[in-house]
Amino acid sequence: MEELKKYVRTIPDFPEKGIMFRDITTVVQSAEGFKLAVDTMQDLIKDIEYDAIVGAESRGFIFSAPMAYNFGKPLVLIRKKGKLPCETVSVEYDLEYGSAVLEIHKDALEPGQRVLIVDDLLATGGTIKAMAELVEKLGATVAGVVVMMELEGLNGRELLKDYPVFSAVQYEGK
Amino acid sequence: MEELKKYVRTIPDFPEKGIMFRDITTVVQSAEGFKLAVDTMQDLIKDIEYDAIVGAESRGFIFSAPMAYNFGKPLVLIRKKGKLPCETVSVEYDLEYGSAVLEIHKDALEPGQRVLIVDDLLATGGTIKAMAELVEKLGATVAGVVVMMELEGLNGRELLKDYPVFSAVQYEGK
Repeated sequence: MEELKKYVRTIPDFPEKGIMFRDITTVVQSAEGFKLAVDTMQDLIKDIEYDAIVGAESRGFIFSAPMAYNFGKPLVLIRKKGKLPCETVSVEYDLEYGSAVLEIHKDALEPGQRVLIVDDLLATGGTIKAMAELVEKLGATVAGVVVMMELEGLNGRELLKDYPVFSAVQYEGK
Repeated sequence: MEELKKYVRTIPDFPEKGIMFRDITTVVQSAEGFKLAVDTMQDLIKDIEYDAIVGAESRGFIFSAPMAYNFGKPLVLIRKKGKLPCETVSVEYDLEYGSAVLEIHKDALEPGQRVLIVDDLLATGGTIKAMAELVEKLGATVAGVVVMMELEGLNGRELLKDYPVFSAVQYEGK
């Protein structure tokens, strides 16, 4: 969906030299851009069968919440360490510098449930892979992954090769 | 809307003794609960005239994003310090322990625009007051505030007395 690109703001050398940062705030603060993004994502996964949508804080909520509302599906939250109040399972994953921990409530999914993972960005795939591991730790399965934006140069799709992966807009670089 | 309460999970003594923590993850992971929450919030503000919705990370995005999508309004993001890539204005506000900084992109709103603030929770009102200050620093005005849940015992409404404030569900305590 090339038309979506006109809403994405590109910021050279952020957060460091050589990175072309793709800013989605300009997508969501355009009513047309936001509708186009969500509608495109919804259309991409229309043949996927799933029971619940899983989204991760914080930008992931921007796309997972409207999709859960529109499709009448449960929205299961994945959050950073220490934010969820009940018993959780967690997974640690590598970031470019250091690591981070994501958590999901232990009772948020039932074994056998099929999950659609919705996120803003597919870069290295590390975050989404961690989300998939949390889903699978609860005995549920990942029916598909949909993101607003994919940075193809980082090859995140390879890390997620076990799942159907869809993106509304693609950039070649990193 | 008392019916919403059946979806809220109450966790005694979290994060510390004496606090009754109201967990909204059980609201959003029920398709019916999430729809009821969003629809109730939308109904509460139906007479407010506004140009854009402002939401703050991360739980605020869960309610502000579907409302922006449903009403075809721009969604302007308020984020924690250092997360927004372009030029920002910021405000520091007090938390129970210490302080935090919220930011908004300088070009996210135009002077004179009317804003609806959407958030998950009205507790002391500190976060929403900080959001209102960011909106006003850009020359825009706050047309109204709507939250999913209000903890009346913390009297956050007093801090926000300059604005119309709506909540979908109220709890007496803190």
